[in-house]
Amino acid sequence: MEQYQAPLNDMRYVIEDWLKAPAAWAQMPLLQHVDSALAEQVLKEAARFASGVIAPLNVKGDRQGCRFAEGRVQSPDGFPAAYQAFVEGGWPALAARTEDGGQGLPQLLNTAVLEMLYACNHAWAMYTGIAHGAYECLKHHAPEWLRQRYLPGIVSGEILPTMCLSEPQAGSDVGLLRTRAEPNDDGSHRISGNKIFASGGEHDLTENILHLVLARLPDAPAGSRGISLFVVPKLLDDGSRNAVYCDGIEHKMGIRASATCALRFDGAHGWLLGKANQGLAAMFVMMNSARLYVGMQGLGHAEAAWQSAMGYAAERRQMRAVKRPAGSPTAEADPIHYHPAMRHTLLSLRAHSEGMRMLGYWVAHLLDQSEHAADPEQRQQSTGLATLLTPLVKAYFTEQGFQQASAALQVFGGYGYSQEYPIEQTLRDSRIAMIYEGTNEIQANDLLLRKVLRNPSSDLPTLLALYREEASLASENPTWSEAAGSLIEQCDQLEQIIGEIRQTEAQDPEAPYRSAGDFLHWLAVLSLGYVWLRAARVSHGREDDPIHASKQESARYYFSFCLPKAKHHATLVKAGLTTTLPFLAD
Amino acid sequence: MEQYQAPLNDMRYVIEDWLKAPAAWAQMPLLQHVDSALAEQVLKEAARFASGVIAPLNVKGDRQGCRFAEGRVQSPDGFPAAYQAFVEGGWPALAARTEDGGQGLPQLLNTAVLEMLYACNHAWAMYTGIAHGAYECLKHHAPEWLRQRYLPGIVSGEILPTMCLSEPQAGSDVGLLRTRAEPNDDGSHRISGNKIFASGGEHDLTENILHLVLARLPDAPAGSRGISLFVVPKLLDDGSRNAVYCDGIEHKMGIRASATCALRFDGAHGWLLGKANQGLAAMFVMMNSARLYVGMQGLGHAEAAWQSAMGYAAERRQMRAVKRPAGSPTAEADPIHYHPAMRHTLLSLRAHSEGMRMLGYWVAHLLDQSEHAADPEQRQQSTGLATLLTPLVKAYFTEQGFQQASAALQVFGGYGYSQEYPIEQTLRDSRIAMIYEGTNEIQANDLLLRKVLRNPSSDLPTLLALYREEASLASENPTWSEAAGSLIEQCDQLEQIIGEIRQTEAQDPEAPYRSAGDFLHWLAVLSLGYVWLRAARVSHGREDDPIHASKQESARYYFSFCLPKAKHHATLVKAGLTTTLPFLAD
Repeated sequence: MEQYQAPLNDMRYVIEDWLKAPAAWAQMPLLQHVDSALAEQVLKEAARFASGVIAPLNVKGDRQGCRFAEGRVQSPDGFPAAYQAFVEGGWPALAARTEDGGQGLPQLLNTAVLEMLYACNHAWAMYTGIAHGAYECLKHHAPEWLRQRYLPGIVSGEILPTMCLSEPQAGSDVGLLRTRAEPNDDGSHRISGNKIFASGGEHDLTENILHLVLARLPDAPAGSRGISLFVVPKLLDDGSRNAVYCDGIEHKMGIRASATCALRFDGAHGWLLGKANQGLAAMFVMMNSARLYVGMQGLGHAEAAWQSAMGYAAERRQMRAVKRPAGSPTAEADPIHYHPAMRHTLLSLRAHSEGMRMLGYWVAHLLDQSEHAADPEQRQQSTGLATLLTPLVKAYFTEQGFQQASAALQVFGGYGYSQEYPIEQTLRDSRIAMIYEGTNEIQANDLLLRKVLRNPSSDLPTLLALYREEASLASENPTWSEAAGSLIEQCDQLEQIIGEIRQTEAQDPEAPYRSAGDFLHWLAVLSLGYVWLRAARVSHGREDDPIHASKQESARYYFSFCLPKAKHHATLVKAGLTTTLPFLAD
Repeated sequence: MEQYQAPLNDMRYVIEDWLKAPAAWAQMPLLQHVDSALAEQVLKEAARFASGVIAPLNVKGDRQGCRFAEGRVQSPDGFPAAYQAFVEGGWPALAARTEDGGQGLPQLLNTAVLEMLYACNHAWAMYTGIAHGAYECLKHHAPEWLRQRYLPGIVSGEILPTMCLSEPQAGSDVGLLRTRAEPNDDGSHRISGNKIFASGGEHDLTENILHLVLARLPDAPAGSRGISLFVVPKLLDDGSRNAVYCDGIEHKMGIRASATCALRFDGAHGWLLGKANQGLAAMFVMMNSARLYVGMQGLGHAEAAWQSAMGYAAERRQMRAVKRPAGSPTAEADPIHYHPAMRHTLLSLRAHSEGMRMLGYWVAHLLDQSEHAADPEQRQQSTGLATLLTPLVKAYFTEQGFQQASAALQVFGGYGYSQEYPIEQTLRDSRIAMIYEGTNEIQANDLLLRKVLRNPSSDLPTLLALYREEASLASENPTWSEAAGSLIEQCDQLEQIIGEIRQTEAQDPEAPYRSAGDFLHWLAVLSLGYVWLRAARVSHGREDDPIHASKQESARYYFSFCLPKAKHHATLVKAGLTTTLPFLAD
């Protein structure tokens, strides 16, 4: 059985060669202490932790699952100890500011670390999933005393936070939620209601759990404008148990070792976080990083899938190939990765995994720039680009995580369907990420409607200008001039169709919603085209080094076999504008 | 929880309106006794059995799985009794000839029955999966005494057969198999070797099991030309146990209630079926129907997915839709199937499920015609078309079964990932069908290389002539003239590219293998275009009837949003011809 190896070389390539992040950090006052050596040390340590501590718990955790009895959740054997090691390693504090007891490292490094955690054990990493988002949320919205009370515990990892949002009748539509918050005289509130799908809503990794709960104040307006955010600890300051009860855990297709809880708030003590009725705004503070992290789950799964499929394909021999690598000995049967169908699958796995790494890390780097860049204009532009690309990363990466896991499973043949190999678990685990943290359909609407059509700033033109700039550099190189031409053509067509969407929308308000899914895919395929064209340039003339040679190969594969999908999505975007969809009878 | 309802109306539509099968049966001497009324009665009875007897065991069977101890396999509770009911209902005999104790009904009806069984309980239906194939195989290849000994038991269902093909080192490449067969003096053989992935290799549904085993005779040529087929019963005629041992069962991602066995043949008594060293030819007798049946698994999963997604979407309310059906009351939140993204998903589910039903049943009808048509030329042409379309049905339908299950799961949001709803099981169960009975990659090679490029007869031109003929009828109707034009254009381009593939192959023998996957998809998307264009014509002028109105809707959806994929696959077929794929380093 193949063991996951953190792709440290490729991570270094993206961070140093492709993003040139260390040079950027050197210009940012709060990140000046980070250099290549420190980055590499952090990633190496994280790789050791991920491969050594949590990877061995992945399959076991899936088989054992979480156990629920009498309101308590027991995580799989080894999970609490691994979390203790995570805390002792200082990992929860990685991206928190030094003033809060954190290490003040870039989001970019945190993102790379998360990729490894998710690749090794998605279910385990779920417990720490919203810690950074909760940190940001408290930091920006909590009153001073609440920050002082809970921020250090979250940064140290002593307290794990949860996000309590969904209710049985309110999933994608949070406006429908019914959990109530009644004010007490002392400024606290009594929270009552039922929440579902609360990841890590109850567990045995930490003593205390801090629930971030969306609820309605008395007389709050209906819908999403009447929602407030509360902090509800599992344990109160006197050590007594707050009135939050776990009524059960979900039995799920995957991430079975992650406790997905039904929570009952029965007049639990809670404190308002941010302003009354502005809970969604407070929660959105964590959205960009949270959705990027979910995208990293997709990347982690795709990377794990690529590694395991390649490992198996190199060992498994079936049939003679029509063509063999020069010099390979004749055998009764060839390694299956000699066969063209398998080469397609493997090259696509590599091009997508590595391509998503470039794109995803770029978004993380944009988040760092949006916070730390010295130039306010650069901060603003970085914020705009990150906000634009985030729903794309969330939706496209998670879909690829699932689809590439399925492609990799196919490489294993019948063995892939057996639990003897971990690829079937990768497939099961990966599927959830297309749903939670805003379904991929909601991401598509967010991208086209909110981030493009209703966005008064010029984020999309800025993005396309970057793509065109890269393409114009590439067009000077005869090897890449055709690819550059395709990329520019796609940019032009995408820009043009935005105008058509606006025009159509005036008469037919539903039109953009019919085209949103394909618009997201179109821009995603195009964006990976950009990252591969840039990679081809970065690696140009350095083909003696295998990593740079492989970048040239992957870029070629991407432009021949993957970029053409952009045209297909463009066709469907146009079809959505002109063709109405009938309603189906109930 | 939604209950599966056998789509009897749609089945009747396909059989009567679309295929006009009863008129064809009336012309076939051996099927003259079958008319519309009988067909409907059979399907109604089958629906009652599928929904009433095996559907209730589906989720339970998944949770309980098969149990293995001391060489014995215990199937989930209720499985043996359900099989008894199946036998008592006479279902195993459905498509066997009356002279063999069967009911002599068309493959078409058998295929429709199988669709229901697979939709209700794929794992249970696995036990009966190769019964018909084994019947055909014995009928055509076994010596008289062997037929007399085992055929009646297979037809009655008293004996369940298995196919023992894969070995640990020999999966897709049967040529690598090592199981040996040593002749005894009495004409029997001693079979020794290890087989894996034998579905129903051991179980408690029947007393006796008849293993069809691929093995090598002494001095057999190496590779696939040295393989012979043997019959190896679990129980010998004196009631003693033959030397076939079950060493374990696979723990799998899905179809967990189907016993996937590792079998050890330890000098077991066996008898040659067919000629020495011609085992593969004997086995291929069952291939066309077996691959069609696996395709029906894909259709069954897609249909189950479509039904459950539609049922859930009609009940679940989230957010107000941008547009509502005329006259629908204003509510706090609309049924989610009002939202455009969900309408896309649901319309695609319906268009693919119903489209595959037309195409799949047509192939079944072709098998009936190839056996029973009075005109020898029609028999020959039907054989050719069925042989051509079978790998396409196997690969495309099973892929759609999985992809549409995933699309349906998305409709359920977080609930879809929970085992509270059966859709996650549909997703898990469906995945295997892309692998077994020849992986989908092998189907693609079979289609392009064997059935098109190396096929001296004109099966593909005949197929495309049918498509063009339908398109030319449709082009007279202004509503469909554009769609007809697209279909004809795709037929022309597909035909043209065959010439290019032949030319390229002369210099670059690997080229067709690089394009085979997209060629299969191209022809599949095109074929569904044909069935929908025919459906539009069949239903034309009958829109007062909801089923015919919905056919017009689905055809429109298919031509606007699904047929464009054909162009994309054409692009990739061309890319495969001109672009070589690098070899990946081990």
